[in-house]
Amino acid sequence: MSKPNIAVVIPAGGGGTRLWPRSRQSTPKQFLDIVSRRTMLQETADRVEALIDPAQLFVITNARHVGPVREQLPEVPPENIVGEPQGRDSAPAIGLMAALIERVRGEDTVMVVLPADHVILRDKVFREIILEAAKAAEQGYLVTVGIHPTSPDTGFGYIQSAAPISDGSEALTVAQFREKPKREIAEEYLAQGGFYWNAGMFIATVKTLRALFQAHLPQSEAGFVAAAEALRAGDAEAFAEHFSTLEKISFDYAIAEKADKVAVVPADIGWNDVGSWTRLAEVLSHEKHVSENVVIGDHIGVDTTGSLIYSPHRLIATIGLEDIIVIDTPDATLICPKSRSEDVKQIVETLKARGAHDLL
Amino acid sequence: MSKPNIAVVIPAGGGGTRLWPRSRQSTPKQFLDIVSRRTMLQETADRVEALIDPAQLFVITNARHVGPVREQLPEVPPENIVGEPQGRDSAPAIGLMAALIERVRGEDTVMVVLPADHVILRDKVFREIILEAAKAAEQGYLVTVGIHPTSPDTGFGYIQSAAPISDGSEALTVAQFREKPKREIAEEYLAQGGFYWNAGMFIATVKTLRALFQAHLPQSEAGFVAAAEALRAGDAEAFAEHFSTLEKISFDYAIAEKADKVAVVPADIGWNDVGSWTRLAEVLSHEKHVSENVVIGDHIGVDTTGSLIYSPHRLIATIGLEDIIVIDTPDATLICPKSRSEDVKQIVETLKARGAHDLL
Repeated sequence: MSKPNIAVVIPAGGGGTRLWPRSRQSTPKQFLDIVSRRTMLQETADRVEALIDPAQLFVITNARHVGPVREQLPEVPPENIVGEPQGRDSAPAIGLMAALIERVRGEDTVMVVLPADHVILRDKVFREIILEAAKAAEQGYLVTVGIHPTSPDTGFGYIQSAAPISDGSEALTVAQFREKPKREIAEEYLAQGGFYWNAGMFIATVKTLRALFQAHLPQSEAGFVAAAEALRAGDAEAFAEHFSTLEKISFDYAIAEKADKVAVVPADIGWNDVGSWTRLAEVLSHEKHVSENVVIGDHIGVDTTGSLIYSPHRLIATIGLEDIIVIDTPDATLICPKSRSEDVKQIVETLKARGAHDLL
Repeated sequence: MSKPNIAVVIPAGGGGTRLWPRSRQSTPKQFLDIVSRRTMLQETADRVEALIDPAQLFVITNARHVGPVREQLPEVPPENIVGEPQGRDSAPAIGLMAALIERVRGEDTVMVVLPADHVILRDKVFREIILEAAKAAEQGYLVTVGIHPTSPDTGFGYIQSAAPISDGSEALTVAQFREKPKREIAEEYLAQGGFYWNAGMFIATVKTLRALFQAHLPQSEAGFVAAAEALRAGDAEAFAEHFSTLEKISFDYAIAEKADKVAVVPADIGWNDVGSWTRLAEVLSHEKHVSENVVIGDHIGVDTTGSLIYSPHRLIATIGLEDIIVIDTPDATLICPKSRSEDVKQIVETLKARGAHDLL
């Protein structure tokens, strides 16, 4: 059986301070092996291994992380790993990769954009969802993956769905994208039904994507083409020059929210964006009772419950803690209640203000 | 002005796991410099520096700690530092030192026994109390120091006082020693008045002490004399042999509770036994508002209050913690609420059961 004509693009440029002190500027979370023995980037690649050949896998990352990506994904051809001279948000990255893949694999290729730093527990179901989305993509849709919301979370964008794109299709037309809502609004979404969390995945043919960029981001078109040609020619200087002309804007805002033919495939795939230590704890506590602790490393607990202890290098001893997160690294330790783990950004801001670059 | 005829004896044999993970079997708390830049043993010696010459200072400790004691107290004559072949509780230590000092300084010497691991904030008042106690000692009393209780603490022994030993004396006769009481009993003591915390200090002439030991612990008398003679002769083997014959029993139980002429000098000296991290936090938070954190080392706190953070080597970042203790060392970190710090012994027991000698 021949592989489907798919190109998987993994944007791996995230900075990721939300898992500080484990994630640092030099090693954002996609390069960390916290969840398993493989890094999140490797797990993202592993997940599509059954669908595509390594030559069909592309990564776009910060130029300084090209080395680590090559080390972590040795099977991917080096020319498929693109280093951005500077981070310019998601639209330039996806627009550039669409122009590149148009040249190397043709415009009928289905481009599957998968974030490098999400957890998906049900790999097999995930691959079925991708193939379902690819079918809708071949009908000209820009397809998203919608996660069944399990709580009125205010940390995600929501996708409001309407009727199936055709009889019997699992893909639904998208009525509207909704920004991260307030709590009451999110509760309404859940009560109303038909709303999904936006998992940040996009599936479309190169042809569809190229047309969308030409229509909605025409000022970057010449840059996409010239930068893609420079990449093929191996001209790093010209690439950097053309890349710098691309408008800094998000793909959601520039393209997805403006496209006419947008679909969503609802997915129940054990997805988690690992956007905070508390979310990571949810992943790791999968199949555990909520009162149990999740421990990576060495921990002695007396009457400690519901906590996440990450300490691969040293002993953490706790007494009477409840729903606490302890993250130990050689030069810094974070301690906070699960309810406050998003506020780690305040710690990072303090370190920036201090100029403590070694801890960032 | 000539120095009073005093010999200060500092028993420094405590094992001290209550400040784990900072205190270890190899370095009990008297050898640690947590409270100030001097160790607790050094601070104990410093405190009496204005009263005596270094030749009047004696230390009795575990044989394996003689080296550290000599290093920490280089001014004390080496022959004044006695190493016990094994820990045999307080009566053998004090009985032996009384027999030794009888030989080297005479029976009229006032022997002042001061624990090596207590904090006393008001040094000058403390020295006045010692001189007051010495006066009572010269009248034949075994004198204790009584701390005004500030709470119905169940972790201390109590001393019940009666009338002054003589008109105008600050020393009161002791009606009774009381073991660590239950909460309700301790509350009654405070309501009733005339009760003091037993600070574990004893002041008596060598003559008084020798007579008390001969009366109440006659089975050890030959051992005291022979061990003291062996020490003077520098015969370590004979010393070890005679020391091993001494009955293992506490000074309070064997002697103090049985003596007839016992006095207590009430003292308001900023005393703290540093018997737990929470007690240490009380010492260090002296003059701070209760909601403030006590920090030794590097800490970034977001909404963290009333906590003790000890981390001289690494950054501790906390969010939203209240009344928590964090003690960081290179190989182990303790995290617990202030209300649970006495339960660190459960952690130590677990480590013993594990055979984790490197962490004990």
